[in-house]
Amino acid sequence: MLRRRRAAGSPLERSLNNYHTYTDYVILNTKERYEILDITEHVENVRAKAQLDDGFILVSAMHITASVFVNDHESGLWRDIQNWVEMMAPAGLEYKHHETGEDNADAHLKRMVLGHQVIVPVTNGKLDLGPWERIHYGEFDGQRPKRIILKAMGPSAAARSIGK
Amino acid sequence: MLRRRRAAGSPLERSLNNYHTYTDYVILNTKERYEILDITEHVENVRAKAQLDDGFILVSAMHITASVFVNDHESGLWRDIQNWVEMMAPAGLEYKHHETGEDNADAHLKRMVLGHQVIVPVTNGKLDLGPWERIHYGEFDGQRPKRIILKAMGPSAAARSIGK
Amino acid sequence: MLRRRRAAGSPLERSLNNYHTYTDYVILNTKERYEILDITEHVENVRAKAQLDDGFILVSAMHITASVFVNDHESGLWRDIQNWVEMMAPAGLEYKHHETGEDNADAHLKRMVLGHQVIVPVTNGKLDLGPWERIHYGEFDGQRPKRIILKAMGPSAAARSIGK
Repeated sequence: MLRRRRAAGSPLERSLNNYHTYTDYVILNTKERYEILDITEHVENVRAKAQLDDGFILVSAMHITASVFVNDHESGLWRDIQNWVEMMAPAGLEYKHHETGEDNADAHLKRMVLGHQVIVPVTNGKLDLGPWERIHYGEFDGQRPKRIILKAMGPSAAARSIGK
Repeated sequence: MLRRRRAAGSPLERSLNNYHTYTDYVILNTKERYEILDITEHVENVRAKAQLDDGFILVSAMHITASVFVNDHESGLWRDIQNWVEMMAPAGLEYKHHETGEDNADAHLKRMVLGHQVIVPVTNGKLDLGPWERIHYGEFDGQRPKRIILKAMGPSAAARSIGK
Repeated sequence: MLRRRRAAGSPLERSLNNYHTYTDYVILNTKERYEILDITEHVENVRAKAQLDDGFILVSAMHITASVFVNDHESGLWRDIQNWVEMMAPAGLEYKHHETGEDNADAHLKRMVLGHQVIVPVTNGKLDLGPWERIHYGEFDGQRPKRIILKAMGPSAAARSIGK
């Protein structure tokens, strides 16, 4: 059952010369070893500073025991997600990775269940998200500083007014 | 065992000024609560309307109980995928999310196993997919309208002929 | 606990006209049916040949029984990942997909646990990866040639010097 719809009138097409990129980083340092944070505001900050009118923002964890994912901002669901990844990739098993002296193999696996990056579309100067979509950071080996990269690409609002 | 190959002769390089973006949305309303749909044709429609010659198309679910993923168009495999995500994230457990009155926590988890977005590369005016790659929508809380976003970025076919 | 940081001084912004794309393919033919390979060097090769200064490189498996993911280059962890996906999606079950004559339904599922593509950010002419991030190929039905696509988009180093 498929039905096509023109979004808000009609599809949006832009042909503009001044594509640009904008790159920023955010340090996250969670209080708990496992923690889920809503980072949508950080993504919107980057969009605003980039004056991005249309395009993409990559949001990607730069550490391999953390996730970036899109889901509901609801604390009960966040606990469900934490319980669920614990069931999927339990801490305390005899992982080969621990023969190197590490103790966080489960965190490396948990982060893969949820994924480590998302692309956020931007349209008409706004994060183009569905009604309940929020961008989250999932930490599985926290209590120390971790970086995420936010990289925007597309025409700026300046370009848009020129294009009009 | 790695072997490098020039694709169809040589790598493709384009230096063109008229990058553009093109954004469209599709409403999907599945008959069943759980359903898998092949949406490759929708992606190709957007590529054609955008006249995209080279670049990327983001295909992303805008609802948090649905997936977008790439796999084989084979109904047996689709049932395997549905059985598998049911095993991974069963319906009917006592999820915390259900204390809010919701009953679909399992759908929020199932969608994360499969992922909620893909980037489809476009080369020489075609979706640059492998022999069996097809783009799918996986619904886990359907029977109501849900949106996906398709956003293309890159030079148009017009740009290509100019570039020649 | 969020703390923002300007990366290496300040966010990077580029406004440049000569965006370009560059597309290449790599054939991987693993010795074993299941194998994990570090393919970061291939991604860096494409970045260098594209002279990409800033932007994105899509790295995507073109076969539906293989993965592309980011994790640690550590052979113990690689075995953990292989054991883990085997537990998540075991070989030898009675999958519906096998009624077509295929025997690799588990490989189709394993590849979805790890994902089939990543976007690698490029900043200042380098893959912008965290300290332990390495790009990997995960094969679950190997011993035959498989392709991955690497597609770069963004301004070239030439553009950068023009922009200065």
